[in-house]
Amino acid sequence: AIAAPATALAANEPIQPIEAAKPKNADMVELGKMLFFDPRLSKSGFISCNSCHNLSMGGTDNLPTSIGHKWHEGPISAPTVLNSSMNLAQFWDGRAKDLKEQAGGPIANPGEMGFTHELAVDVLRSIPEYRTRFKQLFRSDKIDIGMVTDAIAAFEETLVTPDSRFDKWLKGDKKALNQAELEGYKLFKESGCTGCHNGAAVGGGSFQKFGVHEPYKTTSKAEGRFAVTGKDADRFMFKVPTLRNVELTYPYFHDGAAATLEEAVDTMGRLQLGRTFSKEENAKIVAFLKTLTGKQPEFKLPILPPSTNETPRPKPFG
Amino acid sequence: AIAAPATALAANEPIQPIEAAKPKNADMVELGKMLFFDPRLSKSGFISCNSCHNLSMGGTDNLPTSIGHKWHEGPISAPTVLNSSMNLAQFWDGRAKDLKEQAGGPIANPGEMGFTHELAVDVLRSIPEYRTRFKQLFRSDKIDIGMVTDAIAAFEETLVTPDSRFDKWLKGDKKALNQAELEGYKLFKESGCTGCHNGAAVGGGSFQKFGVHEPYKTTSKAEGRFAVTGKDADRFMFKVPTLRNVELTYPYFHDGAAATLEEAVDTMGRLQLGRTFSKEENAKIVAFLKTLTGKQPEFKLPILPPSTNETPRPKPFG
Ligand code: HEC
Ligand code: HEC
Ligand code: HEC
Ligand code: HEC
Ligand SMILES: [Ca+2]
Ligand SMILES: [Ca+2]
Ligand SMILES: [Ca+2]
Ligand SMILES: [Mg+2]
Repeated sequence: AIAAPATALAANEPIQPIEAAKPKNADMVELGKMLFFDPRLSKSGFISCNSCHNLSMGGTDNLPTSIGHKWHEGPISAPTVLNSSMNLAQFWDGRAKDLKEQAGGPIANPGEMGFTHELAVDVLRSIPEYRTRFKQLFRSDKIDIGMVTDAIAAFEETLVTPDSRFDKWLKGDKKALNQAELEGYKLFKESGCTGCHNGAAVGGGSFQKFGVHEPYKTTSKAEGRFAVTGKDADRFMFKVPTLRNVELTYPYFHDGAAATLEEAVDTMGRLQLGRTFSKEENAKIVAFLKTLTGKQPEFKLPILPPSTNETPRPKPFG
Repeated sequence: AIAAPATALAANEPIQPIEAAKPKNADMVELGKMLFFDPRLSKSGFISCNSCHNLSMGGTDNLPTSIGHKWHEGPISAPTVLNSSMNLAQFWDGRAKDLKEQAGGPIANPGEMGFTHELAVDVLRSIPEYRTRFKQLFRSDKIDIGMVTDAIAAFEETLVTPDSRFDKWLKGDKKALNQAELEGYKLFKESGCTGCHNGAAVGGGSFQKFGVHEPYKTTSKAEGRFAVTGKDADRFMFKVPTLRNVELTYPYFHDGAAATLEEAVDTMGRLQLGRTFSKEENAKIVAFLKTLTGKQPEFKLPILPPSTNETPRPKPFG
């Protein structure tokens, strides 16, 4: 028999491999990276996107709920920014249509970066290196928040994680997974997880009710997609999260209530499929899920240009 | 005439060039870097050394006083970690004799990382990749806080900033400085700044009274070296800060009260030397000081190993 090409193999599976990012504009990505790491986009001068979406730690803060401006406790758990470009929409309830629309949110959110778009842009305008970079990229002497979110989104589009062991297996390297992992994948497919967690991101493609067979018990007040549409049918519909790098994105669920992957898989089996997995089955699914950890984005820590005498000063305690 | 060798040129000056770091043990430096960036050394899981000594921003937080655990306002301004290995002792009052002794402090400081050494080490012990790295480096199955601070100190020793324009000038490249910068350097030497700010770090070599000719007015309660020695003569003696990268380490002084370099230079002239600089003189000194910005440490953002089911969870709001 002739070996099937890797893409053909993967096409028969409900999950496709992630391809490496091919950035269109390297300078735009570099500017976006700087902005992603720049705490001067926050009122305190202390919190950057990377504070809550730590790219050393799988693009999350690994907290049940986030810490924001003045140690404000956020209402919901921070999803990873890794592979977020593949989501059908952004946020648990999908209220932002894409990464650009999303990126304006946290800067002006009083419980996150606590700033305003105007002040954030004032900071950037006061820094010659930023002025030069924006001018080169946007051919304009002024900087506006739309340019800022364009650049951040361009950077986020590069935050994909190819080359997981599972992707190697999908592409034909049959030794990339061991027996338990393979059996875990079989269980994952056959019991119906791939009904919701599918595609290259193993999620991110639809809103689904959390609590199909029995209700999910939580103290969180989040109502999911209902907050956006106001339709009763959308109550407790949440965006299906990507399971790429799920080993890194603990704790789990929109309320961060599941500390371990074992607990999350058990809850999913019972609530979403009406099925109780044995300890062995659960362990195999978890083993499979850990093969979804891909190559983390690799780049140099950005060096940010200093503020000038004209730069508005941060107000951490004011 | 025969051109003098670069080292001989520099030897006649009160300031010497910074040499590139020659790390003895690259694996130790890598581990130290990981620890420097790991927020799991804090109670909240949110604050790492890099939160307050941001290596994207000259190794400081650029705040008058730091933000610590639960948004605690610190009592004093955070100095840069860049070139801190050259200091005669660590902290404004010199209470830690070296980087290793210093590094234990913030982890257990309730207003900084808010943790305990024991819990921090428990976190590391629960993570296989850390266990392997510590074992390879220290040839022991156990991890203790001494190993943690050894590794952090080894990383910090690499945080030197060679190749500033001033160093190029010192090494013989006479075009590296322009006329105003050279005149600024001349003023810096001839008016007596180099009496305190000298050596490769342009500071860091002695404790000196802040307020020689007139007292420094501040609301800060810091008493300087007196806190360590209890001697009256040490009241308001502070470690002379390095002026390397001073363009990046705003705001200035132990209370962070001077927002600009112009203000800091003016205060130094009046209080330390009894001399009021004209606007032009001040500008030239500032121009010279900006030539002390060196090559910032360049490295990949470390990717940290995930917590396991055994890892004690952070307590951000507890
Ligand atoms: C204080 C913590 C915090 C900060 C700072 C923060 N985020 Fe978030 N981020 C969150 C939380 C919490 C959510 C989930 C909110 C929701 O779904 O309602 C989120 C959601 C997102 C999402 C959507 C991911 C998905 O799968 O739906 C993206 C993308 C994102 N943030 C990017 C950014 C960028 C870019 C910045 C900086 C401009 C930033 N974040 C700053 C906490 C933070
Ligand atoms: C009917 C749709 C559906 C099915 C079937 C389903 N899931 Fe989910 N899954 C979701 C939704 C929606 C969420 C997000 C729930 C929330 O936090 O609001 C989720 C969350 C998760 C999470 C947590 C991810 C994170 O980052 O927080 C894991 C792990 C998971 N699912 C695994 C599974 C497994 C394993 C199966 C099969 C046993 C499964 N899912 C079946 C819809 C589904
Ligand atoms: C919450 C903010 C904060 C955190 C977190 C923090 N530091 Fe600091 N650091 C400071 C402040 C403030 C000082 C000055 C304290 C003093 O002099 O009394 C300081 C001083 C230092 C110094 C002395 C520099 C000098 O010139 O005297 C070093 C070195 C240092 N820190 C390294 C670290 C390391 C390593 C970590 C992590 C283990 C760390 N810091 C975590 C705020 C912080
Ligand atoms: C008698 C000793 C002495 C002399 C002379 C002196 N300095 Fe200083 N300098 C210090 C000390 C001590 C500090 C720290 C003061 C504090 O914050 O407690 C300092 C701080 C500074 C700072 C702020 C650095 C920072 O990171 O906070 C600058 C800038 C500075 N000096 C420049 C100068 C200049 C320019 C001159 C000459 C006009 C000068 N100094 C003369 C001892 C001296
Ligand atoms: Ca989380
Ligand atoms: Ca999570
Ligand atoms: Ca400073
Ligand atoms: Mg947000």
